[in-house]
Amino acid sequence: MEQLPQCETLILEKHGPALMVTINRPEVRNAMSLQMVAELSTLFNEVEHDDSIRAVVIRGAGGHFCAGGDIKDMAGARGQQAGEGRDDPFYKLNRAFGQMIQQVNESAKVVIAITEGAVMGGGFGLACVSDVAIAGPTAKFGMPETSLGVIPAQIAPFVVERIGLTQARRLALLGLRIDAAEACALGIVHQVAGSEEQLNDMLNQALERVRLCAPNATAETKALLHRVGHEPMAGLLDDAAEKFAAAIRGAEGTEGTMAFMQKREPKWAGSES
Amino acid sequence: MEQLPQCETLILEKHGPALMVTINRPEVRNAMSLQMVAELSTLFNEVEHDDSIRAVVIRGAGGHFCAGGDIKDMAGARGQQAGEGRDDPFYKLNRAFGQMIQQVNESAKVVIAITEGAVMGGGFGLACVSDVAIAGPTAKFGMPETSLGVIPAQIAPFVVERIGLTQARRLALLGLRIDAAEACALGIVHQVAGSEEQLNDMLNQALERVRLCAPNATAETKALLHRVGHEPMAGLLDDAAEKFAAAIRGAEGTEGTMAFMQKREPKWAGSES
Amino acid sequence: MEQLPQCETLILEKHGPALMVTINRPEVRNAMSLQMVAELSTLFNEVEHDDSIRAVVIRGAGGHFCAGGDIKDMAGARGQQAGEGRDDPFYKLNRAFGQMIQQVNESAKVVIAITEGAVMGGGFGLACVSDVAIAGPTAKFGMPETSLGVIPAQIAPFVVERIGLTQARRLALLGLRIDAAEACALGIVHQVAGSEEQLNDMLNQALERVRLCAPNATAETKALLHRVGHEPMAGLLDDAAEKFAAAIRGAEGTEGTMAFMQKREPKWAGSES
Repeated sequence: MEQLPQCETLILEKHGPALMVTINRPEVRNAMSLQMVAELSTLFNEVEHDDSIRAVVIRGAGGHFCAGGDIKDMAGARGQQAGEGRDDPFYKLNRAFGQMIQQVNESAKVVIAITEGAVMGGGFGLACVSDVAIAGPTAKFGMPETSLGVIPAQIAPFVVERIGLTQARRLALLGLRIDAAEACALGIVHQVAGSEEQLNDMLNQALERVRLCAPNATAETKALLHRVGHEPMAGLLDDAAEKFAAAIRGAEGTEGTMAFMQKREPKWAGSES
Repeated sequence: MEQLPQCETLILEKHGPALMVTINRPEVRNAMSLQMVAELSTLFNEVEHDDSIRAVVIRGAGGHFCAGGDIKDMAGARGQQAGEGRDDPFYKLNRAFGQMIQQVNESAKVVIAITEGAVMGGGFGLACVSDVAIAGPTAKFGMPETSLGVIPAQIAPFVVERIGLTQARRLALLGLRIDAAEACALGIVHQVAGSEEQLNDMLNQALERVRLCAPNATAETKALLHRVGHEPMAGLLDDAAEKFAAAIRGAEGTEGTMAFMQKREPKWAGSES
Repeated sequence: MEQLPQCETLILEKHGPALMVTINRPEVRNAMSLQMVAELSTLFNEVEHDDSIRAVVIRGAGGHFCAGGDIKDMAGARGQQAGEGRDDPFYKLNRAFGQMIQQVNESAKVVIAITEGAVMGGGFGLACVSDVAIAGPTAKFGMPETSLGVIPAQIAPFVVERIGLTQARRLALLGLRIDAAEACALGIVHQVAGSEEQLNDMLNQALERVRLCAPNATAETKALLHRVGHEPMAGLLDDAAEKFAAAIRGAEGTEGTMAFMQKREPKWAGSES
């Protein structure tokens, strides 16, 4: 990505190897609009091929992560002539969100979510596909859909993948709202910060770890993790052993082994830009 | 269900939209008999089609939830002429329990387990298929089967689904007995009450949340959650988006959206009965 | 096993029904060599058919469990002429480790890991396939692979099975190192001891529970647990009910039921040797 894409709903900034993405619709607590979905999707497409980016950090402007689906888009879909089945604008709007979520989930980059204030509905779903999620002291998480007469269609499946059926069924069926400590106990987030300062410290520590790990090895490891449980273990391990052999014979494996023996920090491709 | 079914092992009471089911064999710590399995199965069949029931609350009489399989039924099966394979009365008795458990697991209603005293063997299995499980201070959980020379055949698989292989293997292989706090840490139950009063408060809060959520949306969400991990994610999300579109265009979606905009409580079908 | 196999990297001792396996390369923090992998594999093969062994306890000499793959074997593989694909010595070395791990995971015996000091890379993977894992106060766990330019190919899949994708992705992608308390909170280990004495007490309590549970019932239960999530639930439960009927009619079911009614300890085959 020679240049960062132009976005109306997102603010993009490069900080070293990290792309900071700020969801920027604070007047509606960063509600997820169709445009925001499209911009996030475009962004993650472009980021995949940019070796200068190692991590994508997603955060919300104005103290909220994302309060869920945008009411205006919903009203707009209702106003359109209703197509049947997959031509229904409600179908398209809902499914587009899920496709973006799948894309973020499987991104080759390390995705870090900084969750504060409202992390509801679609915002909750987005937090659930991060590799590292850190909650600020104000964060509140929930799936209010059933209390609005609808279903958390594109969100609940990722919540089950995140925290298992047992906790997901209670949260989704009761439409509960939980705080940062409970979200951490359930495994929605990995860490809870007691203050803004601590939140930034935790983020910086995570980014420092990203910097020390090899880019391709990290991407291959992430892809491997996503396959577990979706195919037989023996074949997965055969394939993983081939990737191991390629990695250790490749540039990263050579540099990593050498740096270890020379007791110095390894130097990975793309890390200077 | 115009009238509640007649049961010998269960006491049934309607409290608003909740059906309170009390396992009532306190003289044997509510051991699970063949008759009890049959009555629970009939009950859950009938409840599925009763719009006036939103939640089923299962509790045991006399301070125990359920101490496991009934010794007399076991002795009776041993006394019968042994059929081969699936004609063996032990096979039938065991499998019937598992079928009831699967039925409760997939019930369209919100199933709440109030676990106190002995929650062992079959009782443990039953607790593991609830949507919300609350433990009282006296609750003890365990699978003692291997210490009796048999296997937790219809129970252990639901324990793996409930808390994962890692914790299930230790509990099942060592035949351990754990208390309410450990059961909550492992995710067998969602909440632990310190007193009878707190237990009832927690139950009432859960029932209040059930009341505020739309009945059909809740049932569809539960069915969706159960599919995760059993089929490819993309097709599941496609299907879920169709259900989302139908829900938001339907009666519940219309009422839920309107109530939200009018800042009033939504009014769901069946909630007055 | 009339006689314990001869091993160079392992010390083997029988303590009643428990086989104590001490990984004995303290000069390299018990790094996992090709020879150690082969010896563990041979050992677990032979143990399967030995009725006098109920549990296998794995521990490291000199205060460390196992620090990961052996650097010398890596150097050796690099020195060999590189075959293509699965003839590559790096492939063979990596995959052999994973095959041993799968074997330990599915062993019919109860596998107990006593984790102290370095539990890294391959050592971490080995801990993740135990039925019971107890950590001493000095234990440190981690997958440093990506920081060395390679991937945790045969390890990360078992970490996902152990603690789920959510926690595994953070640990693996950041190459984190965590202590015993965090490992217990994540479910890598089941218990943390505050001292050497407490560690031995916890081990003895686990072994006492193994002794009280029936050998065949325990092995069949373990095999059953491993099938959950890998095949449809209904067929699994049908099969489990057949095994239940066979168990209760067999020698262990008869002895277990009788001992229960006579209020005495059950006596299982092989327990006197």
